[in-house]
Amino acid sequence: MTYSIAILGASGYTGAELIRLIAGHSSLKITALGAFSKAGQSVAQVFPHLRHLDLPTLLQIDQIDFANIDLCFCALPHKTSQSVIAALPPDLKVVDLSADFRLRDPDDYEKWYGNKHSALTQQAEAVYGLTEFYRDDIKTARLVAGTGCNAATGQYMLRPLIAAGVIDLDNIILDLKCAVSGAGRSLKENLLHAELSEGYHAYATGSTHRHLGEFDQEFSQIAGRPVQVQFTPHLIPANRGILGTGYLRGDAAQIHDTLSQAYANEPFVDVLPLGQTPSTRHVRGSNFCHIGVVADRQPDRALVVAALDNLTKGSSGQALQNANLMLNIEETEGLMMAPLFP
Amino acid sequence: MTYSIAILGASGYTGAELIRLIAGHSSLKITALGAFSKAGQSVAQVFPHLRHLDLPTLLQIDQIDFANIDLCFCALPHKTSQSVIAALPPDLKVVDLSADFRLRDPDDYEKWYGNKHSALTQQAEAVYGLTEFYRDDIKTARLVAGTGCNAATGQYMLRPLIAAGVIDLDNIILDLKCAVSGAGRSLKENLLHAELSEGYHAYATGSTHRHLGEFDQEFSQIAGRPVQVQFTPHLIPANRGILGTGYLRGDAAQIHDTLSQAYANEPFVDVLPLGQTPSTRHVRGSNFCHIGVVADRQPDRALVVAALDNLTKGSSGQALQNANLMLNIEETEGLMMAPLFP
Amino acid sequence: MTYSIAILGASGYTGAELIRLIAGHSSLKITALGAFSKAGQSVAQVFPHLRHLDLPTLLQIDQIDFANIDLCFCALPHKTSQSVIAALPPDLKVVDLSADFRLRDPDDYEKWYGNKHSALTQQAEAVYGLTEFYRDDIKTARLVAGTGCNAATGQYMLRPLIAAGVIDLDNIILDLKCAVSGAGRSLKENLLHAELSEGYHAYATGSTHRHLGEFDQEFSQIAGRPVQVQFTPHLIPANRGILGTGYLRGDAAQIHDTLSQAYANEPFVDVLPLGQTPSTRHVRGSNFCHIGVVADRQPDRALVVAALDNLTKGSSGQALQNANLMLNIEETEGLMMAPLFP
Amino acid sequence: MTYSIAILGASGYTGAELIRLIAGHSSLKITALGAFSKAGQSVAQVFPHLRHLDLPTLLQIDQIDFANIDLCFCALPHKTSQSVIAALPPDLKVVDLSADFRLRDPDDYEKWYGNKHSALTQQAEAVYGLTEFYRDDIKTARLVAGTGCNAATGQYMLRPLIAAGVIDLDNIILDLKCAVSGAGRSLKENLLHAELSEGYHAYATGSTHRHLGEFDQEFSQIAGRPVQVQFTPHLIPANRGILGTGYLRGDAAQIHDTLSQAYANEPFVDVLPLGQTPSTRHVRGSNFCHIGVVADRQPDRALVVAALDNLTKGSSGQALQNANLMLNIEETEGLMMAPLFP
Repeated sequence: MTYSIAILGASGYTGAELIRLIAGHSSLKITALGAFSKAGQSVAQVFPHLRHLDLPTLLQIDQIDFANIDLCFCALPHKTSQSVIAALPPDLKVVDLSADFRLRDPDDYEKWYGNKHSALTQQAEAVYGLTEFYRDDIKTARLVAGTGCNAATGQYMLRPLIAAGVIDLDNIILDLKCAVSGAGRSLKENLLHAELSEGYHAYATGSTHRHLGEFDQEFSQIAGRPVQVQFTPHLIPANRGILGTGYLRGDAAQIHDTLSQAYANEPFVDVLPLGQTPSTRHVRGSNFCHIGVVADRQPDRALVVAALDNLTKGSSGQALQNANLMLNIEETEGLMMAPLFP
Repeated sequence: MTYSIAILGASGYTGAELIRLIAGHSSLKITALGAFSKAGQSVAQVFPHLRHLDLPTLLQIDQIDFANIDLCFCALPHKTSQSVIAALPPDLKVVDLSADFRLRDPDDYEKWYGNKHSALTQQAEAVYGLTEFYRDDIKTARLVAGTGCNAATGQYMLRPLIAAGVIDLDNIILDLKCAVSGAGRSLKENLLHAELSEGYHAYATGSTHRHLGEFDQEFSQIAGRPVQVQFTPHLIPANRGILGTGYLRGDAAQIHDTLSQAYANEPFVDVLPLGQTPSTRHVRGSNFCHIGVVADRQPDRALVVAALDNLTKGSSGQALQNANLMLNIEETEGLMMAPLFP
Repeated sequence: MTYSIAILGASGYTGAELIRLIAGHSSLKITALGAFSKAGQSVAQVFPHLRHLDLPTLLQIDQIDFANIDLCFCALPHKTSQSVIAALPPDLKVVDLSADFRLRDPDDYEKWYGNKHSALTQQAEAVYGLTEFYRDDIKTARLVAGTGCNAATGQYMLRPLIAAGVIDLDNIILDLKCAVSGAGRSLKENLLHAELSEGYHAYATGSTHRHLGEFDQEFSQIAGRPVQVQFTPHLIPANRGILGTGYLRGDAAQIHDTLSQAYANEPFVDVLPLGQTPSTRHVRGSNFCHIGVVADRQPDRALVVAALDNLTKGSSGQALQNANLMLNIEETEGLMMAPLFP
Repeated sequence: MTYSIAILGASGYTGAELIRLIAGHSSLKITALGAFSKAGQSVAQVFPHLRHLDLPTLLQIDQIDFANIDLCFCALPHKTSQSVIAALPPDLKVVDLSADFRLRDPDDYEKWYGNKHSALTQQAEAVYGLTEFYRDDIKTARLVAGTGCNAATGQYMLRPLIAAGVIDLDNIILDLKCAVSGAGRSLKENLLHAELSEGYHAYATGSTHRHLGEFDQEFSQIAGRPVQVQFTPHLIPANRGILGTGYLRGDAAQIHDTLSQAYANEPFVDVLPLGQTPSTRHVRGSNFCHIGVVADRQPDRALVVAALDNLTKGSSGQALQNANLMLNIEETEGLMMAPLFP
């Protein structure tokens, strides 16, 4: 069986990544592509690397007929996404890649994103899209909210540890190193090649990054008490990848065991042998997440390091993994491609 | 049906690329991996990005039992390759990625590579592996010699033009810009990140690059007279890609027509609309070759620009395309993945 | 003696480079900085790498008092520059870095830049700023027009050869590889790190790049007849540098002799031994230009390769070199810093 | 007055950086350059970017006459350095850039470097070279031991805070992001461009990096009790720069005040306004260190971020700063060049 797919926001990087992945999928077919300023253009004009594919021209979203669409990916900016999704047919399956439906409490949304949520009905039904931890809910969901790419990285590192009670909840530090495609295709001076390459820096310092809303929500729910991590992202001169370095209090061997067991049957999350740590270059372009654990020289202190590709496992790959579940397709379909190295 | 595959030289970049591609192929299975200094290691140790695959440990080549191998890829350095291939079972299908069997005249080999050829029997039966131009011979070949990556780029630009007689054969200039993975995984000072990044330079200047042996052989054969191109490669701070810029004498529209017709039915070679030129970033990680033609402001002068990924279309992708033909599998199987961008 | 300097257009890359160079100059002092949208900001805000310097706040240009300024650098976009310079005090020494005063014939200007020139009086008095070839005129000039960075590169390669009559004037091909800072600090999608890094491409193909206006003007004047070069620039994923590869008809040894003699006493232009070619990484951040010559395997064909830093020798370093001459300061003052490598 | 300078280990990156800096110094003259495998070569052969300088040919160290040398920089690998320095004239002023004389306790040296120290006499007289904190001792020192580049970064962040007692000594986490030139010019697979670029990873995990010996020694001495930091370096795809991110317990305003006062009169260490953080791109090629402080959302937790250039302030710039003090030259001489951006 072939399912008919729409992608809204097809001219951004996560849109392009969805097209790339779906092109290698055995039972999905893209029948509509939506965009704003680039509507009317062909995919070959917007993304010459996809010129070999037979794809529809980009349309304004209101030009799209959703009657025969089986599932819609929405890769739009937050705030835009909620109003677009509220206007879609109410029974259309949707995987949203924006931040609009990640936070269950509308006050949290307003606190972190600065505007009132305008699609509360949809927000109430949305399922948080971290596949490995919400798999059963996702299978029956109508609307799935893709996680933040940083938020995914940190949660792969920490969720099993918080659940198992093997780390000190008041001493969690997450230092993330993020590649530039995570900032999207927006025209900002600090994203220019001449500005960014050859240098690196911290941003959203002081634990002000919006993905903290997701950490707070999820970690506190797991722990059954408020948990606040200290989190600093850094912008690195590379195009793809997030490397998360977690400084934790706990026994490294116990941490390693806990993570190994948690992900033992997961096709995409791979825990390295104790003492080894991952590199972003080894997951590039793939849906894999590699996690390593190392004991510090000081007792009861441990390092957890995770690597994933922000555009794949961190957003579009995750979105496709969720769509597979929602359409009752094999979860790994279209997602087993090996990383690109070198 | 599933064919059993061996890869010799599995610890280099073209070996890793073969593994990546075959991992996505529906009817090939890797049953043996050969190496020298890294024999005894697992693929996960040598290439952590391939750790999710279930693959055999690397062996010394003489430890491999070739009895049940259907086809062997040989991704070894030139000179080593000829002695290894001479010792393989004489009826084993082989795709060689080295330079050892590209030149039909042993004197040409000695001239360009500096040593006498030691496997003349095998050399005599080898078919030159530029798929689009040797397809019928490759289908029935026992031994196929993969082309040089620069040589492939230049030939995609020029072969149809020489055959059609639409360019001046005495005024062909090829200026190539090559990414660093083409130099392989060898430990040389000028390939260090600190040396290479942020700068670029010409090398093998004065038309001394070994791939000229292939140009001379092929272009002269097509033309029925000696043809010598002027060719300068440049090393660019990027990992994958070759961009060829050809300065030609001829009518741009006629050149464009000739190339368009030549590649009209080719699945991997794509001629852009007249006036457009390609970028290496739009073929990265794929088996596609994009070609563009532009008229110069001066009459009868034209620019032809081609882009391909040196590790894919330039070597391992080409090798797999040829293996598909040799095993009577669909030629495009395992090779239609979209480029990785950004 | 200390001269008082103004820089207009201080918030762009060539403006920043001027500040960097003047900070190490013994007898220049920056007393005014002009900008448009960033007026009102401090240099530390606009360019944090210059925060250690004691510099005036950026002003709107009409807020600047030019009464006590000895020399003004104008690093503004073309078209803007001509109207700003026309409004400056008529006896103020000016070094312009834009394209506005490079072409002596107003029709040429209109042809290449698409608008009528609005400052014909100033254009008539402007001296072309390629220091090594216009040194005497620059010493007494009121207004010097800095050359294009690509135009400088090509002229260093070719001027002495055209003057000496040692190359075929109808067979000159220039293939340039340009780093991204040459495009300035403008917000364009194709200049984003995620778009540009890891790939490269030709642009302004078909000999349509505006710097051809300078080549045509200068080469034709030297030759005493029309000379048209075929010129293709390529955008390379690096921040600084231009590598020019010239394909010429002529005797390599004679070409090497001619260049060696032409630059024998030049402090910044260095001809390498015959057979060696330069790299952009070896001139990075410096005012040097390295030139190499290699004989092709075919007789009477030669390769000339030049490397310079587009922001230094290609624009701001050249501008300072000219300012030194105009102020009767030692020509090399402030410009002898060694390149930054690695 | 002009002092005569020797550099041993002139063919490595810190050697090249010393040459670059001394070339712009008003009163130092390089009269001898020592190397091992590259002895006999000219500087232009080993470092073409320095070809414009009039410098002596590289010699074997035992070929150098030290009689007229006023000061010797020793930029050799550790272990080699101690035997070379032990054999130098005992009254020759030496600035060592290796790790050999950084640790005062020979047992510490053996613990971190794995071999017994063979130059205990020299070790006993060596002064630790972190200029801002050992200035008076350096002025009269015969032998100064340059610090590790990571060790310098961490100490600029932490020394004043430990001395002032404004942070919790048992909760210090240092996450460093290091550019690749810090690994030197050694031929290792993981330093190749094709391996390193486009990816990043942690190394020396579990607080096993050798620079911890310096942290332990210095921080414990300042605190008057043992202090152990948790420290993870990461290798970033850039050539120059260290960004240190420190996660501390303490009041951010008090931390900022303490650092601001400590460095108020320092020419090279610059504390940014509270809430701002630095970037490596803004200190590139310079001797500056920028430090920023940010309060976390959780009370009593703070972030301190520092940026410096590992080859300049982290090693060769520091070495020259110390040499200036030892020779009674203005401390900033030859070191005030602005960073190179972009």
